[in-house]
Amino acid sequence: MTDDHDAPPVSPEAAVRPDELVAAAHEDGVDAAAAAARRVIDALLLAGDHTDADLTGVAKQLHALADHLQERAPAREERMVTMWRGTGITRHDPVTGPENALAPPLTLTGRDDGSVHGVVTLGLAYQGPPRCAHGGVAALLLDHTLGVANHWAGLSGMTAELTLRYHRPTPLFEPLTVTGRQLSVDGMKIRTTGTISAGGRDCVTAQGLFIAKHLPRPS
Amino acid sequence: MTDDHDAPPVSPEAAVRPDELVAAAHEDGVDAAAAAARRVIDALLLAGDHTDADLTGVAKQLHALADHLQERAPAREERMVTMWRGTGITRHDPVTGPENALAPPLTLTGRDDGSVHGVVTLGLAYQGPPRCAHGGVAALLLDHTLGVANHWAGLSGMTAELTLRYHRPTPLFEPLTVTGRQLSVDGMKIRTTGTISAGGRDCVTAQGLFIAKHLPRPS
Repeated sequence: MTDDHDAPPVSPEAAVRPDELVAAAHEDGVDAAAAAARRVIDALLLAGDHTDADLTGVAKQLHALADHLQERAPAREERMVTMWRGTGITRHDPVTGPENALAPPLTLTGRDDGSVHGVVTLGLAYQGPPRCAHGGVAALLLDHTLGVANHWAGLSGMTAELTLRYHRPTPLFEPLTVTGRQLSVDGMKIRTTGTISAGGRDCVTAQGLFIAKHLPRPS
Repeated sequence: MTDDHDAPPVSPEAAVRPDELVAAAHEDGVDAAAAAARRVIDALLLAGDHTDADLTGVAKQLHALADHLQERAPAREERMVTMWRGTGITRHDPVTGPENALAPPLTLTGRDDGSVHGVVTLGLAYQGPPRCAHGGVAALLLDHTLGVANHWAGLSGMTAELTLRYHRPTPLFEPLTVTGRQLSVDGMKIRTTGTISAGGRDCVTAQGLFIAKHLPRPS
């Protein structure tokens, strides 16, 4: 997918436990603050300007919180190293990351049949058509899920090509089942498929081609 | 793309001004609060748990702000109507929406040659590989941009199929150029293409098939 980086040898990844495919959220620390930030994002969309809430005051308090956090945060390059320390899963991604308020977050579990599986309910922040998930949000969830399915299968990589087919609208506000499964490995090429379904019916299916290499982690 | 909804007749959409393809952000009200929430999301990721910031206090204050907003917000179905009032652009989507803290937000402008064009810099919340945008985030930006390109061309619809090709990593922290252009209309079928580039080189390209119908707006 890129001619800029050397490819590491193709070797299976260390075995992972089925419940360790994504980071578990902690009940305190930054995970708890990110969970609270998700509530703010949703409540802002629910309120809009059709509210007698003190939006000016809310903005001022949010800026004060951002200032408080920024003033005590490490420099970005320093943080990049801690963020990517080790070889396992990360905590910051915009799909499963408990530290990232953009992430619903989606939790995925590995199954004995080689697939990964999760259930998520999307709220207002993920809306495209009325009462439905944005098509690009479905793409975001599936791209990530295919990557996790590759990790579960033992060899993952970077997305080279991703094709999404939208069969019916993906509803907000009700449980969606998200699945992924590695189909084949041919040298460096990995083929993977996945689905978002609601009420037992497929809403979006994805086919991905991944190349078995990764950018180096900052150190 | 769906067999659940009647298709409206295929007719060109009302002409839009090139600078009215996405909602302009207001400097007050919910847009200002969403902009402040974006700073909080980013600062939480920068801080992580590697900080002496009072994360418990931050979480408590965020919950209090969410409570304040929720208590004064309309009911969801009522809000859905105001959110979708009128026929033009919306303000809530997760790509360009000034009311949505998930949106970078991306601003797009129409050009005389039929394309739409925008520049955006993505921060930590959009990270996939180290220092690069998540492949699914690129898909989200492009799906939306192709939709706006269709609107600019005069006939838009819902995504039926989207193919993304990842040519090289999409960097965070530097300006990305996002473009879209409608290629053809054949009955209800609309074909559209788009690109994310950095420093003049294509990072991700997209091909989309859209069907010229829309879900009804809540009323």
